[in-house]
Amino acid sequence: MTDPFVVVGGDAAGMSGASKAKRDDPSRDVIVFERGEWVSYAACGMPYYVKGSVPELDDLVAVTPEEFREERDVDLRTNHEVVGVDTDAKSVTVARDGTTVEQRYGDLLIGTGASAIEPPFDGLDLEGVFTIHDMDEADAIERYVTERDPETAAVVGGGYVGVEMAEALDGRGIDVSMYEMLPRTLQPFGEETARTVEDHLRERGVDLHLETAVSDFAGDETVETIAYEDGDATATADADLVVVGVGVAPNVELAEDAGIELGPTGAIATDEYGRTFDASDGSVIESVYAAGDCAEVTNVVTGEPDHVPLALTANRAGRAIGSTVAGDPMRTGGTAGTAIVKAFDLGAARTGILDAERARSAGFEPVSVTIEAQTRPHYYPGATKLTVTLVADESTGRVLGASVVGKEGTKRIDTVATALSAELTVSELQNTDLAYAPPFSPVWDPILTAAKVLGGKLQTED
Amino acid sequence: MTDPFVVVGGDAAGMSGASKAKRDDPSRDVIVFERGEWVSYAACGMPYYVKGSVPELDDLVAVTPEEFREERDVDLRTNHEVVGVDTDAKSVTVARDGTTVEQRYGDLLIGTGASAIEPPFDGLDLEGVFTIHDMDEADAIERYVTERDPETAAVVGGGYVGVEMAEALDGRGIDVSMYEMLPRTLQPFGEETARTVEDHLRERGVDLHLETAVSDFAGDETVETIAYEDGDATATADADLVVVGVGVAPNVELAEDAGIELGPTGAIATDEYGRTFDASDGSVIESVYAAGDCAEVTNVVTGEPDHVPLALTANRAGRAIGSTVAGDPMRTGGTAGTAIVKAFDLGAARTGILDAERARSAGFEPVSVTIEAQTRPHYYPGATKLTVTLVADESTGRVLGASVVGKEGTKRIDTVATALSAELTVSELQNTDLAYAPPFSPVWDPILTAAKVLGGKLQTED
Repeated sequence: MTDPFVVVGGDAAGMSGASKAKRDDPSRDVIVFERGEWVSYAACGMPYYVKGSVPELDDLVAVTPEEFREERDVDLRTNHEVVGVDTDAKSVTVARDGTTVEQRYGDLLIGTGASAIEPPFDGLDLEGVFTIHDMDEADAIERYVTERDPETAAVVGGGYVGVEMAEALDGRGIDVSMYEMLPRTLQPFGEETARTVEDHLRERGVDLHLETAVSDFAGDETVETIAYEDGDATATADADLVVVGVGVAPNVELAEDAGIELGPTGAIATDEYGRTFDASDGSVIESVYAAGDCAEVTNVVTGEPDHVPLALTANRAGRAIGSTVAGDPMRTGGTAGTAIVKAFDLGAARTGILDAERARSAGFEPVSVTIEAQTRPHYYPGATKLTVTLVADESTGRVLGASVVGKEGTKRIDTVATALSAELTVSELQNTDLAYAPPFSPVWDPILTAAKVLGGKLQTED
Repeated sequence: MTDPFVVVGGDAAGMSGASKAKRDDPSRDVIVFERGEWVSYAACGMPYYVKGSVPELDDLVAVTPEEFREERDVDLRTNHEVVGVDTDAKSVTVARDGTTVEQRYGDLLIGTGASAIEPPFDGLDLEGVFTIHDMDEADAIERYVTERDPETAAVVGGGYVGVEMAEALDGRGIDVSMYEMLPRTLQPFGEETARTVEDHLRERGVDLHLETAVSDFAGDETVETIAYEDGDATATADADLVVVGVGVAPNVELAEDAGIELGPTGAIATDEYGRTFDASDGSVIESVYAAGDCAEVTNVVTGEPDHVPLALTANRAGRAIGSTVAGDPMRTGGTAGTAIVKAFDLGAARTGILDAERARSAGFEPVSVTIEAQTRPHYYPGATKLTVTLVADESTGRVLGASVVGKEGTKRIDTVATALSAELTVSELQNTDLAYAPPFSPVWDPILTAAKVLGGKLQTED
């Protein structure tokens, strides 16, 4: 009898892998160890629970523990923490209620996820100061808002979590300030898109502080103020609630302690099937996989390892590993770093490589254009502006990335994401046959218009 | 001095070609002969003018004759009909006010468009019976509705023009019946999408007659009734207004008379740069191009000549020919037959090859799935159903086509259209990194879900 397929971590990557393996090979035992209570939940939905758009926290659970156990026949053990991996003995050490047991595995999937980064601010442990990375925190913020009725909130970090939380807290009637150390919000979305979002945040009443370092939070048990650098001085502002969203770090301790190699991004290195490597000699560990927010995947543009802790990447890699473990090898798929975020009335989306320096370090000579187009013909009711930034390599014409921002139509980023997977050039992208009818698009879809303009620029620079 | 670039026809293909050539080579004279008054108008917007969503007919004009003449320096001559082409002498015969003149050309672009097919029904010349293919007809229908206040309308033909006109006339408070000879509407959109649209048309009060042949229209000067086959009998129904939209035929007489080759579809055959062929020996006519609704383009899936009279194809081919004529050869681009149509509250879109027989005749073994997905996660407000049909070739896994239908998110067809251009397989499509956030999409975009399911089916049939 084969030893079971053991999964560490019960969220997107882990549960996708467990479900797929069991479905494809029902005879194999599949055990999932999850250190918390929650499994398979939509972390990306948490801001909308806080906002009040999603009535119940349970609504965010895609599949319940009971469904995994009863319908999918997965041996799911919540409140079980894997504290050690022995890749020679092919076993894991599992802690529960102060005791530990050993569990042998035939194949192992490490899906330990990522954790919110907690910067070394004073006052981080005051009541009313939260990070947001798991369901308990989302629950706590929502209860705090309901029970304490805060008037002011400070959001620390202008990434997509910060932007979503600003909208959510504003939606609860709270005055929101946002603090970002860098000169712009939404760093990976490129300058043009970030600027458009920033103007809109200000229009919607968010007090936006860019290039501003937060120094600490203060209050008597409960947070009352936030202190931040203002030029050479330190300023303070009222903050009845603080949400810190300055990024996430992959949970790699378990892997690192087991002698599994980390990659250049600091996440667990993997091959195209999600298999890990032995840190001592770089050899593939055939039976140990990693996927999700703790693991690297290959960037489809650069071909280099990348760490993009997003839900689709995790789900897809987990599912592929489940298939591989069940006997049908499936590649985990690369990432284009595609992301989309709602910021009040705007959508902003990005894919590929937008940063010129990153493009150059991957061997490209980036050329970029930003165009403004309409989402529908000028004469059709409801047409709104869509701003598209498109980047390509000067010598080959290959499309490298894009960003779009506007009130509707931002899913058009998928056209470019698909073009990136297929390594299309700008002139090939320009010749794709996209859908047109007045209620849906102008004749030249904004993506095609951007490709036309970028094509012209590439030609001129020949 | 080079002879001028002469363009026959002042709509999408012709004006795109003229504008591009003049912009890229300002020293070259560019003359456009248009037999009517209107140039560069959005034919696809006409139903929305009739509906009342677009206030003025002039709103549909993208660029006015004055703008072409003054800003773009194009010698645009409206009310000039080209009645002959001599490819040996490189000249055209132009008729105006009963006289004709000869005009020499260095390069010639034939952009004569297409005309609405007029079936041999009795009563087609009654007042109140219209086809809809040009601006004068749109104007006439709108005036007829405003002045005569019809209570009932019959739409003959269930293609996209019929569906759009049904919505438009319903929007003017008219009871609409629709008659389609075939067993379904929207033939090129595939059965699943057509059925969904048909159910919705009925829900919205359209009296839908499928597999129903119309025999004639009757009335005293003005149309009053429509007669149609009902089983073995003939039935009649009131119709104060009739719109016939049973397709278009390419305007090829001019080309055919000039000895230019027509292709298998009946439209003008072209090579990848839009150049035409000599019918007598099949040789390329270097200086004579054709583009738009009168010309063939290559289908990106089958590699075969296709006739897809749609606006983007015409604009793109015209523009490419303008570039070629100005000295920078540009391919006209293929077609995937991508189309999208609004049917009351639904959108329906299609791309590629959906018809199994057509796929087989192009050498494929089509396998297809239809899935139902949500446009957003179940917990996010406003999620609606999106039905996706995806077709691939069994032996290679190559994606052949798709159709989607739903209340929002139908522009997702562009993902598949891009995949078709890039000749992606289902497993490559499944691994594209599409954008996810709850306000915009489920984790697995409906297109990815369809690819997953189709991938599983292809595997099973291995």
